[in-house]
Amino acid sequence: MAKHKPTLYIIKLGGGLIDQPAALEQFLTSFATLLPAVSPATPAYSVLVHGGGKLATDMATTLGIPQQLKEGRRITDSETLKLVTMVYAGYINKNLVASLQAKGCPALGLSGADGNLIAAVKRAATPIDYGWVGDPVSVNTDLLDALLRNNTTPVIAPITHNKEGQLLNTNADTIAQTIAVSMSTFYRVELIYTFEKKGVLSDLNDPNSVISSITKDSYRHLKENNSIHTGMVPKLDNAFAALDAGVATVRIGHAHELALLLKGQSGTTITHG
Amino acid sequence: MAKHKPTLYIIKLGGGLIDQPAALEQFLTSFATLLPAVSPATPAYSVLVHGGGKLATDMATTLGIPQQLKEGRRITDSETLKLVTMVYAGYINKNLVASLQAKGCPALGLSGADGNLIAAVKRAATPIDYGWVGDPVSVNTDLLDALLRNNTTPVIAPITHNKEGQLLNTNADTIAQTIAVSMSTFYRVELIYTFEKKGVLSDLNDPNSVISSITKDSYRHLKENNSIHTGMVPKLDNAFAALDAGVATVRIGHAHELALLLKGQSGTTITHG
Repeated sequence: MAKHKPTLYIIKLGGGLIDQPAALEQFLTSFATLLPAVSPATPAYSVLVHGGGKLATDMATTLGIPQQLKEGRRITDSETLKLVTMVYAGYINKNLVASLQAKGCPALGLSGADGNLIAAVKRAATPIDYGWVGDPVSVNTDLLDALLRNNTTPVIAPITHNKEGQLLNTNADTIAQTIAVSMSTFYRVELIYTFEKKGVLSDLNDPNSVISSITKDSYRHLKENNSIHTGMVPKLDNAFAALDAGVATVRIGHAHELALLLKGQSGTTITHG
Repeated sequence: MAKHKPTLYIIKLGGGLIDQPAALEQFLTSFATLLPAVSPATPAYSVLVHGGGKLATDMATTLGIPQQLKEGRRITDSETLKLVTMVYAGYINKNLVASLQAKGCPALGLSGADGNLIAAVKRAATPIDYGWVGDPVSVNTDLLDALLRNNTTPVIAPITHNKEGQLLNTNADTIAQTIAVSMSTFYRVELIYTFEKKGVLSDLNDPNSVISSITKDSYRHLKENNSIHTGMVPKLDNAFAALDAGVATVRIGHAHELALLLKGQSGTTITHG
């Protein structure tokens, strides 16, 4: 019989929240105080992954760095890479860590370069050259495991490196998913995406029309009936890919409801079914 | 008999070097490759502490943040704190880490907020209000020890926190000294300050007039004879304070000569005598 694995929550902080001090404060309080209480009998561990919010875009404007978009995605030129490294791995990461420390959470901030946490390869320049964007290829699971067991809570910024001295910009959702999959070898991983909606909605105009559970079968039906917002399709495709690769559950829900989300009492839970 | 302590090198990277890519590259190669070779028979550990160079000042100009100086020292107002957090803990720290990783050094970047590594108190606003400047009060030596023994090399940015969610700007020399003193309980600590001179000079106009060794007695004579540059006095006072507090040796020398400095074959060695 397999040895019982401890639970690890990989929690992605929705980008929009970073720009809302009061909402962020509430989220961080939940993160710091509720997590140890989820399963008092058995140890549970957590990792926080964050994006950048609007601060990087605002700073780019102030610094006069033109932001290029191709097919709705930002191009990471050299100046933009410098900017996101400063804003994501510096300003946002260290302020999140200091806030969590003040709330009693033993937070420790990391980029993917730190301890070779996440090695990535620069995305091919064809058909679209996204610039200094990296796709993860490996996770230093030994380091994360050592940090978790040493009673620290990793807070991870979406900057990776190519092991040849080059930093790279990586999507925060991808970081969360990559870490979740890699850590599934040692932990029962619950991957939780928080954002500013209560979950996957059946009716975009009704914020309470949350689909509480999606399985592979029901997902097929939802897509066939066009009753799922196309913007959610990549997120859900990634969620099923994570489940296929060993993650126990994936949940998507509102950052305000982290406590309920952790207990599976809010949001959308995605399972194989 | 006291148990034999392993050696720990706390190495401060001189601020000026950060602005010189070729010199920085040479320093990082030395740091990554020479350190394990210093004492092949017994394990030696290392910590790198860095400052900010001119990049923060240049960025402040670009962003239109006026830099106030009082008695030659920079005032850290809110905008400047944001800037140094981005530049020191983000851009510089992560690029140093990525470069070291590429050279085979298991670097891991930290600010003082991460894992509550360095808690500080905001300096009193009288007689001079330096703004968001912090004086260290404690070091999480358990965390540093765990990281060193887990085969990582901490790379530390001069940003601390007050344990109440506030980041603070702290002098990098002070960070290096504070860590050196705290870690002396567990390690035989060699504190090494690199800069752009070969050591403490007896004649400022002669770059080769290095005083190879300074003891408390010789320091008194040097001061009495006015044969020491006043700019070096605070550095040397701090060096003797570190020795008094348990640090084994303090060396001051050129960043280009790190290999020789580590062996005590270059620079100025400061000892009790």
